[in-house]
Amino acid sequence: MISTERNVKSVSDLHQDSVIRSVTEQLLTLDKPDESLSDNPGLKKKVLRLINLLRSALYPHIFGASAAEDGGSFAVAVECRLQSSADLLAQIIATLQPGREDIPELVTRFMLGLPDVKSSLETDIRAAYEGDPAAKSHEEIMLAYPAFEAISIFRLAHKLYELKVPMLPRMMTEYAHQITGIDIHPGATIGRYFFIDHGTGVVIGETTTIGDHVKLYQGVTLGAKSFELDENGNPVKGIKRHPDIGSNVVIYAHATILGGDTQIGDNCVIGGNVWLTHSVEAGHTVISAAERKTTII
Amino acid sequence: MISTERNVKSVSDLHQDSVIRSVTEQLLTLDKPDESLSDNPGLKKKVLRLINLLRSALYPHIFGASAAEDGGSFAVAVECRLQSSADLLAQIIATLQPGREDIPELVTRFMLGLPDVKSSLETDIRAAYEGDPAAKSHEEIMLAYPAFEAISIFRLAHKLYELKVPMLPRMMTEYAHQITGIDIHPGATIGRYFFIDHGTGVVIGETTTIGDHVKLYQGVTLGAKSFELDENGNPVKGIKRHPDIGSNVVIYAHATILGGDTQIGDNCVIGGNVWLTHSVEAGHTVISAAERKTTII
Amino acid sequence: MISTERNVKSVSDLHQDSVIRSVTEQLLTLDKPDESLSDNPGLKKKVLRLINLLRSALYPHIFGASAAEDGGSFAVAVECRLQSSADLLAQIIATLQPGREDIPELVTRFMLGLPDVKSSLETDIRAAYEGDPAAKSHEEIMLAYPAFEAISIFRLAHKLYELKVPMLPRMMTEYAHQITGIDIHPGATIGRYFFIDHGTGVVIGETTTIGDHVKLYQGVTLGAKSFELDENGNPVKGIKRHPDIGSNVVIYAHATILGGDTQIGDNCVIGGNVWLTHSVEAGHTVISAAERKTTII
Repeated sequence: MISTERNVKSVSDLHQDSVIRSVTEQLLTLDKPDESLSDNPGLKKKVLRLINLLRSALYPHIFGASAAEDGGSFAVAVECRLQSSADLLAQIIATLQPGREDIPELVTRFMLGLPDVKSSLETDIRAAYEGDPAAKSHEEIMLAYPAFEAISIFRLAHKLYELKVPMLPRMMTEYAHQITGIDIHPGATIGRYFFIDHGTGVVIGETTTIGDHVKLYQGVTLGAKSFELDENGNPVKGIKRHPDIGSNVVIYAHATILGGDTQIGDNCVIGGNVWLTHSVEAGHTVISAAERKTTII
Repeated sequence: MISTERNVKSVSDLHQDSVIRSVTEQLLTLDKPDESLSDNPGLKKKVLRLINLLRSALYPHIFGASAAEDGGSFAVAVECRLQSSADLLAQIIATLQPGREDIPELVTRFMLGLPDVKSSLETDIRAAYEGDPAAKSHEEIMLAYPAFEAISIFRLAHKLYELKVPMLPRMMTEYAHQITGIDIHPGATIGRYFFIDHGTGVVIGETTTIGDHVKLYQGVTLGAKSFELDENGNPVKGIKRHPDIGSNVVIYAHATILGGDTQIGDNCVIGGNVWLTHSVEAGHTVISAAERKTTII
Repeated sequence: MISTERNVKSVSDLHQDSVIRSVTEQLLTLDKPDESLSDNPGLKKKVLRLINLLRSALYPHIFGASAAEDGGSFAVAVECRLQSSADLLAQIIATLQPGREDIPELVTRFMLGLPDVKSSLETDIRAAYEGDPAAKSHEEIMLAYPAFEAISIFRLAHKLYELKVPMLPRMMTEYAHQITGIDIHPGATIGRYFFIDHGTGVVIGETTTIGDHVKLYQGVTLGAKSFELDENGNPVKGIKRHPDIGSNVVIYAHATILGGDTQIGDNCVIGGNVWLTHSVEAGHTVISAAERKTTII
């Protein structure tokens, strides 16, 4: 490895030093780092730690809490993780919004919402077990189903979105997107008994609403049709852009449903590959023409 | 950062404490943690470590074994990793099935299957090299191809699935799904010389069978058409639900092939976006009608 | 846990030892580890560290550099990370190409290209902000948008690809693929103001070219139609196989555009699910027939 050593040395010689100094100057003139963020470079790591603490408080036997470690009691383990979550959440919000004064109240309100999150997740686990013949137990769903990862993080993030915490909810669901391929905007409104099978490529937009007992397959998009620009050519933010899905709806793989005016009624079945930009009344099945037309040569 | 400190303090005050205690109680009444799992909170981490040990035993120069570290000998490195794998596998199974008595025999049988796994993987690497003009070397395939990650983990998990180890095989392939976007159920039966190009969004169901020399592109689904419910409305588990794919078959991007009765014969080509719920005899090409019909405005 | 202990013990008994020795021998006869790689088992980790160092040099406030840690100055932080990047890059190339003599010059040339990478990324951030109504700030894009992860890694990898560094550029973009589901080959040529919304399942092939102000949605493939084999049946490497996309083009979800002769002119709009293997002249919109034909039952 001597030749390697020599190469590394010569890279660090004087000439190289001046190159690096010059590149540094050029890079720094290209943008002005945001001061509030600059004191907190570890934000991404803190968000990940918050997710892990919260999931471990909700499901101590699945996500890393050991009864033995905490004096033999799950209650101690859960309480301890909730306390750490509350502290960390307060810290993160203080970094993102230094002037915000109601942080303690906000954290309390979030904590008080956790039992509701868990009771919704219980219905999601049941929906997964009933909706997938390959599921062997509830534990398997919690340990190995991407839908459970994505939905559990979404339901936590959605509470923070409702409390108008900026940035953090999106960072949470984007982490879920990274590990599952399921991209749910924290602003979406999703009912109980929700299941996504396989999941890779699913996109659920910010202003989507979904009823109870809805099942999606991989590659389903609930997205925007187009969007309005303001007088400066920037997109108008905060408009209803994504569809409303009723209850007891099944949407098969790679179907795409677009638009803020598009409403899918209760008990509908949307076939695979369907492309929909208009509403469908309750109780109907929609099949893609392409689904039935193939040519065999 | 003084203001932040103060916020954090006030969150931990007495009022907050009682909130956390009450939330803890509510969370714990919502489900009863599974006792057998609760002693082993680190299961996910152990599964990941097992995957890394096994891959490093199969491909020491790619996955982390250093000849120098192990007295200059790959043989020592491989033997050492195999021994650690055997110990860890025994531990994991003992956690998942505390009463199981044949664990040593089971581990031995798994170990004896590893040369077969490696010899299959050698054919997969060759298939990748021959199937992708962008592949520059066999090493590049092992270091940078998601298909190699997904298939190597699948082939290991499939051996454990055949030995009827619960949970663990699914946790292994779900880890592969997480890092590659390729979702192969460990129950699938897959021949030699198997390649998946790009891979994101591929789904291969539990009862799928695939011959030799098969190539899939991104977004391909080999899935279930529908499934039967038992008298309690639960899905009937263990039925053939996914297609059979012959040998020398190419399936292009985003094609969907569904159903336990659907058989694709040898030497077929299935075009991109095709949606198939019926069998195709050997030697045919199937093209989607949509593939050829676009309107230019 | 006594029974577990016992199981683990019995697995390590003499019989097991001989099994493991025999499996080791079989595994080692199956392939000959590559000598140059075998001295550097940590290559994947080094590549990840290089990516983090480079991104932290480009965006110190987002990717882990703390002004406070570096004597209160971003300039020191950036310079320090650039120096470490240069050293690590030289080391990695020396491992991949032990005989290469121009490593210091190559590293210098790469470093001198970084301001160009950053100025391109500034345009990409603006394109994301203007192209997504859900984007609340530039920081949110850098912290939570997979497109920014994928494109920033791609732009760095592309510079190394242009300098003919082997393996490393592909390992970098494959890491991006892993965490974002966006698979961009480092050989692709991509203009400024580039945005990918959601992104999961996007594939951009090696010889693709893309103009300025182009926007892609999830699941878009810019791929190869077929490829030529040489007299030994191996694919001919280095041929133009992927499409050319003009400027100001929007390509909606799951559209597939294939072939080295396929050119999409400026100002085109390609609808969702479209399957294209021929060129489209500037200024046209292409809609899939399937997009408009669904049957409601």
